[in-house]
Amino acid sequence: MSESQMRALGYQMVDKVVDHLMNRQEQPAIHTGSPTELRSALGGPVPLEAGNPEEVIRLLTESAFTHMQHGDHPRYFARVPGPSSFAAILGEWFATGFNVNVASWLGSSGPATLELVVCDWLRQLMGMPDRTEGVIVSGGSMASLTAMAAARTERGPGIVYISDQTHACIRRGLLAMGFPPGDIRVIPTDDEFRMSIQELSIAVLDDCGAGRLPLMVVATAGTTNTGAVDPIPEIADLCLASGMWLHVDGAYGAPAYICPEGEQLLNGINLADSLVLDPHKWLFQPYGAGCTLVRHPGLLADSFAINPEYLRDVGGDSDQVNFFDRSLELTRQGRAVRLWTTLRTYGVHRIQESIQRCLSLARYAQQKITESPETWRLITPAQLGILTFRLQPDIESASGKDVHTQLAARLSESGFAAVSSTTLKGQDVLRLCIINPLTTKDDINETLERLAAFVPLLSSF
Amino acid sequence: MSESQMRALGYQMVDKVVDHLMNRQEQPAIHTGSPTELRSALGGPVPLEAGNPEEVIRLLTESAFTHMQHGDHPRYFARVPGPSSFAAILGEWFATGFNVNVASWLGSSGPATLELVVCDWLRQLMGMPDRTEGVIVSGGSMASLTAMAAARTERGPGIVYISDQTHACIRRGLLAMGFPPGDIRVIPTDDEFRMSIQELSIAVLDDCGAGRLPLMVVATAGTTNTGAVDPIPEIADLCLASGMWLHVDGAYGAPAYICPEGEQLLNGINLADSLVLDPHKWLFQPYGAGCTLVRHPGLLADSFAINPEYLRDVGGDSDQVNFFDRSLELTRQGRAVRLWTTLRTYGVHRIQESIQRCLSLARYAQQKITESPETWRLITPAQLGILTFRLQPDIESASGKDVHTQLAARLSESGFAAVSSTTLKGQDVLRLCIINPLTTKDDINETLERLAAFVPLLSSF
Repeated sequence: MSESQMRALGYQMVDKVVDHLMNRQEQPAIHTGSPTELRSALGGPVPLEAGNPEEVIRLLTESAFTHMQHGDHPRYFARVPGPSSFAAILGEWFATGFNVNVASWLGSSGPATLELVVCDWLRQLMGMPDRTEGVIVSGGSMASLTAMAAARTERGPGIVYISDQTHACIRRGLLAMGFPPGDIRVIPTDDEFRMSIQELSIAVLDDCGAGRLPLMVVATAGTTNTGAVDPIPEIADLCLASGMWLHVDGAYGAPAYICPEGEQLLNGINLADSLVLDPHKWLFQPYGAGCTLVRHPGLLADSFAINPEYLRDVGGDSDQVNFFDRSLELTRQGRAVRLWTTLRTYGVHRIQESIQRCLSLARYAQQKITESPETWRLITPAQLGILTFRLQPDIESASGKDVHTQLAARLSESGFAAVSSTTLKGQDVLRLCIINPLTTKDDINETLERLAAFVPLLSSF
Repeated sequence: MSESQMRALGYQMVDKVVDHLMNRQEQPAIHTGSPTELRSALGGPVPLEAGNPEEVIRLLTESAFTHMQHGDHPRYFARVPGPSSFAAILGEWFATGFNVNVASWLGSSGPATLELVVCDWLRQLMGMPDRTEGVIVSGGSMASLTAMAAARTERGPGIVYISDQTHACIRRGLLAMGFPPGDIRVIPTDDEFRMSIQELSIAVLDDCGAGRLPLMVVATAGTTNTGAVDPIPEIADLCLASGMWLHVDGAYGAPAYICPEGEQLLNGINLADSLVLDPHKWLFQPYGAGCTLVRHPGLLADSFAINPEYLRDVGGDSDQVNFFDRSLELTRQGRAVRLWTTLRTYGVHRIQESIQRCLSLARYAQQKITESPETWRLITPAQLGILTFRLQPDIESASGKDVHTQLAARLSESGFAAVSSTTLKGQDVLRLCIINPLTTKDDINETLERLAAFVPLLSSF
């Protein structure tokens, strides 16, 4: 491709992305296509000859990207949104263009320094001790797996305690790591969906009594269902007393620790032996960045170091960190660039304000729910941006399918907004996750109004 | 940030990347900085206030990115290069800007279709059967781990056979998966660094005789050290006869299968139960893309499916693939966008030519080596772009450190080019990996000349 063509296509890309960012609130928050139609638009035989890049861009922007959830949309409240910010996008564009690989120190000293610096900034923001080490992997699932592998390296195999609200990636990760299903204990949660410290203590005592080794508790700092935070200080005490590792999964919730309100809610996460947070959630990064922080210096390298002969040129000295020794990846996309760019461009105060705004917006949504007792009943209050609620009174849909699922589906089909439905101890609920600072009160009002407007139509579902 | 500022910064990014692509051959192939200086330039306290984006960009481009290996540099011959192409960069820029997440079908039907289509194109190019399924993860390490987890799901635990040339990520992955070290057999290689089929057969028989279950052979289609290809058809026969899974790690080498010459060298890779290839190596993608292809439909989902209550809105029907069920990741960066853009823009013929050019360039380098018998001795011939050679006659450096390591280090320090040194059955060698189609014969000539010019200086090392 000629230089001028590359520049022109690049500018066009920038324009289309900026157009998307400026106009997203007028576009659907989510839209799903049919497999057949999408295959027909985007598939076909293996392309043998060169194609027109303009046509390729048209298909991407008018077909592929118009059939997806837009995690960065101000009315995308489903699952966990991905409100990526422009500085983060810009940083990642640079990393992609320069093809940054953070593997060996000798081959990536500049970008590796960015990753060291960013991990240390996150470490400080999370209140963890000086010598804590970090690594950025592809997301929360891999970040927790990385941390749990480090735990097993230090403590050996043993029993792992999770709760009935722990994210599904934890069990999946443990099973992939070869933990027998019988070594995973699911501790019930209390009425607020927090791991019951009493049940946990009993389970640990039981296992000790039976001669089994308790290895680790996975506490959640912001559950996906309700935003609940497990009683981390109490769990930390128990871990200390019984020699267990404390892993805190704060994939979506932990970043709120940087605001005073969040710090209170997340009290104790800095006691973790390992803490996971996802910059691609509440630190406004594009997808593909989960951070593992491990309190014990050197342990990540003890867990993952490799030393093959074909890497002997890049061994390096002790202050020269080889990031390929800190997780299961060798070649590693430079994921710290975007986060470094974000923190340097916006500064932490702006990010604090953005998170605080979301915490307040979720409380506003809660207020709107409680102001409509004829339609809604609040089930769990706004916690770290998440609240859940139910139709009031109970209504059965004609199909017998849960009405909340139907309402969420109707809203998604309309494209106006996206919310989740979920089940809390057998009770079906609607759920909003508000972590996008671009969301307005009007967005919340109208989303709730539109949901309510679907209710009379339920009998026809 | 204002719309005009975003556009201006975006254009500036495009210009800096295109400048890099146009002028890279005049820049160093690799440059390493000191931890202290880089920390001082890029570190500092957590940034609280907003910073000037121009200054941020300056630090990225003038400090971070000037201290790294440039895998896309035409004279970067070390480890495995990453010769990313502009169409791939452009595609990834789009995916980042639109924050593509390929997790559930309902939330990513467009981008999920791209991933289905791309995996199927790769499946066809690799000659694997129709119903083969694929998934794109962050790189070869995770791709092999994903495949090996699928193997264990289908066949249960058992003994894994690797060779003394198998990539280090395989053992690391197996250990992280909980395989006991004693369940990993390292099979010796023959004089051409290919897994010895005889030794493999003996080891398998031994294990069977002792009542142990052989699970899987990890064959390599292009070793990192020499580009050697294990005798895959024979290994496949043995696997079939003994019920073992055949995993083929073709992370760097497999893409060459799309050229007639490569197809011959890689004969039999399509017999694999699982095959890994890294688009971010020889398919010209920016870092962060490794592909797993699994012959057995449904097995990836059997291995990784999750079904938590908070994802019930996005369950989908059977022709609606939830990619979060195909690997250990839930939120998944849209890694197929860049590859789809590349294949549609350049077409396979152009990629074939590019790979073929590299195969020929490596043979040219071999010829240059053999034409200088007073300086070099060829150790392994050009295979899939890799060749190794030694100084002739044997020279000891003053420091006693291997001279080849010293030569590679000198060359890297000069910035002109980067080559690796490695050890082959106890013998130190220099190694070139030529997979960048932008490399010229002059690049090769001058790299060899400069290496030779360092030789008289060795006594002072």
